[in-house]
Amino acid sequence: MTPDTKPHSPEKAPVTLLGLGAMGTALARAWLAAGHPTTVWNRTPARAAALAAEGARTAGTAAAAVAAGPLVVVCLLDDVSVGEVLAGADLAGKDVVNLTTSTPDQARDRAAWAEERGARYLDGGIMAIPPMIGVPEAGGYVLYSGPRDLFDDHRATLAVPAGATYAGADPGFAALQDVALLSAMYGMFAGVTHAFALVRREDVDPAEFAGLLTGWLTAMAPVAHRIAGELTTGADPEEEVAGLAMQVAGTPTFLDTARGQGVSPELVTPYFELMRRCLAEREANNPQGMVDLLLR
Amino acid sequence: MTPDTKPHSPEKAPVTLLGLGAMGTALARAWLAAGHPTTVWNRTPARAAALAAEGARTAGTAAAAVAAGPLVVVCLLDDVSVGEVLAGADLAGKDVVNLTTSTPDQARDRAAWAEERGARYLDGGIMAIPPMIGVPEAGGYVLYSGPRDLFDDHRATLAVPAGATYAGADPGFAALQDVALLSAMYGMFAGVTHAFALVRREDVDPAEFAGLLTGWLTAMAPVAHRIAGELTTGADPEEEVAGLAMQVAGTPTFLDTARGQGVSPELVTPYFELMRRCLAEREANNPQGMVDLLLR
Repeated sequence: MTPDTKPHSPEKAPVTLLGLGAMGTALARAWLAAGHPTTVWNRTPARAAALAAEGARTAGTAAAAVAAGPLVVVCLLDDVSVGEVLAGADLAGKDVVNLTTSTPDQARDRAAWAEERGARYLDGGIMAIPPMIGVPEAGGYVLYSGPRDLFDDHRATLAVPAGATYAGADPGFAALQDVALLSAMYGMFAGVTHAFALVRREDVDPAEFAGLLTGWLTAMAPVAHRIAGELTTGADPEEEVAGLAMQVAGTPTFLDTARGQGVSPELVTPYFELMRRCLAEREANNPQGMVDLLLR
Repeated sequence: MTPDTKPHSPEKAPVTLLGLGAMGTALARAWLAAGHPTTVWNRTPARAAALAAEGARTAGTAAAAVAAGPLVVVCLLDDVSVGEVLAGADLAGKDVVNLTTSTPDQARDRAAWAEERGARYLDGGIMAIPPMIGVPEAGGYVLYSGPRDLFDDHRATLAVPAGATYAGADPGFAALQDVALLSAMYGMFAGVTHAFALVRREDVDPAEFAGLLTGWLTAMAPVAHRIAGELTTGADPEEEVAGLAMQVAGTPTFLDTARGQGVSPELVTPYFELMRRCLAEREANNPQGMVDLLLR
């Protein structure tokens, strides 16, 4: 036996994985590479067959895959699929870890649903794209929420594909923070898309400009800590109004530049409008922050 | 003489600085600290007096400040102020470096205006906030555009307050890339604001969540390189449509979560809508990228 054949190690916990999309496949590969006995199932069997060649055990039905071991990881398209796929399986005594993207309410309902069927339930939100799975230095991780002891019982196994971070006992918290972090990312993507559109018709090298963008956004990302401080302890009102007034005064430069470059401002106007509303509220002695202006 | 009195060094180039807002003041302090003879002027004189105590020379009028040396740095509220402040000054033979935030067209017009008056003109866009000025490790820098030889003549002096990056001969390019980078930042801020609103009413510690946000956005910022690659060489159409279709399928989770948390989705919906339009265009065999869909 050579070291790189990585056979199933008897001391490694077995894992059942339901769902072999790009993410599920990456997860399965990471557990296989680490020597965990891994049973896989997918609605269309071709993807499972490919993994079988890499050492995975395949199951003919989701119910058979669930029966193969105590730890069942679910990574499907959406919460409806989770209900359908697990409908015929016996969940009694199983530990279900659901990594399917869902809303916080779906996660809470699914937790109750699984517990009614005799399972322990942990919800997870994956903060990574498939190429970051099994590559610790890529910085991907998974947020988990649900019973702390259940998380601790499987922590070593869960930490194999990506870092395992506990997000709280409320089973909805992993989904909530997952959606919040991904929403922030989409905001950044919107800004980046607008920025590339502004330089698109000019003699600006996209690759060089991407370097400037990445550096600048990385330098500015810690502003999240300032916002957190304002939410926790409140901001210096005078300093904040002055800063906001200067930013609102600057927005015509942004809109005029977009107009001059023939770019629709649709991706940036809502934030400018929120800044304007926030300044107006403060000048009317209603000092609400921008975050709170979004709350209904 | 003790080392920390930092007197004007005869070998350091003199600098004239017009405009002492938070940014202008930070710039003046950086040049003073590095031993450059620094002449300052501000519309309201109190700020200049404060800097005089730190070694700055003050001028009673903008024209007198301009007359004091060959290099004139301008950092005012907007382009209209630049025209007003420089109206009475003799610019013949001067090198004007305009760091005032402006649109690319304003920068081009101001360059022509200054050259008509016998000056050489460099436009600059500051990629930093005042606390980053004079702190090299903070990563702030200034984009400059205009004649390359003019940039090279003053590079050592310009590099004192923050890194000096040449952005091209077109005098509008510094402003264009400045506005583009700041637009991307506002997109990121919009995403961060929405994310904080989602967790605002839950038992989630803002400071801990800020750490997750900063880490995640920093990990995702290099996506700009992928977008640049797609703009330069084109994307794999099949792979891209599949990825886009999955993201569009995921948007209800984001909107449902916002609804469930009582958060207006106004900051994230325009990007989701653009993704949806992009997917529809591709399915109709009109493979335009999201960046190009913003162009008119």
